[in-house]
Amino acid sequence: MKRGKKVRRYKDRLREILDVAAKLFSKKGFEATSIQDISDKLGLEKGAIYYWVKSKDEILYHLIDKESKLFLRTVNSLMRKDIQPDEKLKLFIGNHINVLTSNLDRAAVFFNEYRALPKKWKKKILKLRKNYEAILRNVIEEGQKSGAIRKDISPKIIALAIFGMVNWVFHWFSPQKEFSPQEIARMFSQMIMEGLRPNRNS
Amino acid sequence: MKRGKKVRRYKDRLREILDVAAKLFSKKGFEATSIQDISDKLGLEKGAIYYWVKSKDEILYHLIDKESKLFLRTVNSLMRKDIQPDEKLKLFIGNHINVLTSNLDRAAVFFNEYRALPKKWKKKILKLRKNYEAILRNVIEEGQKSGAIRKDISPKIIALAIFGMVNWVFHWFSPQKEFSPQEIARMFSQMIMEGLRPNRNS
Repeated sequence: MKRGKKVRRYKDRLREILDVAAKLFSKKGFEATSIQDISDKLGLEKGAIYYWVKSKDEILYHLIDKESKLFLRTVNSLMRKDIQPDEKLKLFIGNHINVLTSNLDRAAVFFNEYRALPKKWKKKILKLRKNYEAILRNVIEEGQKSGAIRKDISPKIIALAIFGMVNWVFHWFSPQKEFSPQEIARMFSQMIMEGLRPNRNS
Repeated sequence: MKRGKKVRRYKDRLREILDVAAKLFSKKGFEATSIQDISDKLGLEKGAIYYWVKSKDEILYHLIDKESKLFLRTVNSLMRKDIQPDEKLKLFIGNHINVLTSNLDRAAVFFNEYRALPKKWKKKILKLRKNYEAILRNVIEEGQKSGAIRKDISPKIIALAIFGMVNWVFHWFSPQKEFSPQEIARMFSQMIMEGLRPNRNS
């Protein structure tokens, strides 16, 4: 077998492990799930899984790291585009809701089990999170400078309000329900930029 | 000892148990906390605590029930007042942030440990939550009818956006930091009603 193929197989199996773990952690909780449960679901011997990961903690870290990087990846390239701050805000909101709703099990692990991460990994994730939060705050400050966003509300509070709205989507979103991720993003962006009073732009 | 005094003592001790449990659940998590831990903190024999509660689950239920009812209590009377829907919205947001920030340990239990509640109690809490959510949705629909709130965004989405903003406060609020609960409520209400574009009312 060629090396490239071997690496691909290794990665495919790791992805499988993470997918199965995300489902179990999301359903039963991280604490209540054992390496044995994950191995059973995959039809692996318990020992075999240690070829890919060293511990259950490491699986948790992989999952939260992946979600964090998905949030960051698209946003990083979006934010470099030469567009207006309010457009950037829309793109940020759209991307966030998109990542979050594209894999609800991983999102559940990201939100519910972050607390269970060992300290050394928490630190790494926190760094990614700070980067991500800084991107949103920069967009808001850019908007305040350019005049697209009001200056009388703290950019920190605006960012925290937006994170609240979009993160909460995880708690109520269902793919079977009436609103698509795109529709939610559009309505949230409208609410945020235009507020709730009617006839603003008419 | 008179009966009234006895009842008061009983209730005082129950409150103490709940306060101590909230602190431990919030810090170590519900799963990792034992009745023994709670008894130790209170200087009680392990058996003694069963005079007040039947189980650790029951303590959890008491805590989440209390928080749910605090959210509802003030809001119920506020909403009956003869005031405009946008004023009601402000009061709702203010009350929510106020309850949530007044006891951060209990809020942590409310948000982080709801999943751990046994089914029969989850049902009861869910009923309170539905009532509470209906109050906000009614205010929004009232506002849409009266013309105070735009009609082109679903009242459901508006309510979920607001719940997201205000619930998220739990994740970042700190009594030592720069914003008081009142200031946060004021800025959130402004954002929601007026949006982020500048010079709206000027």
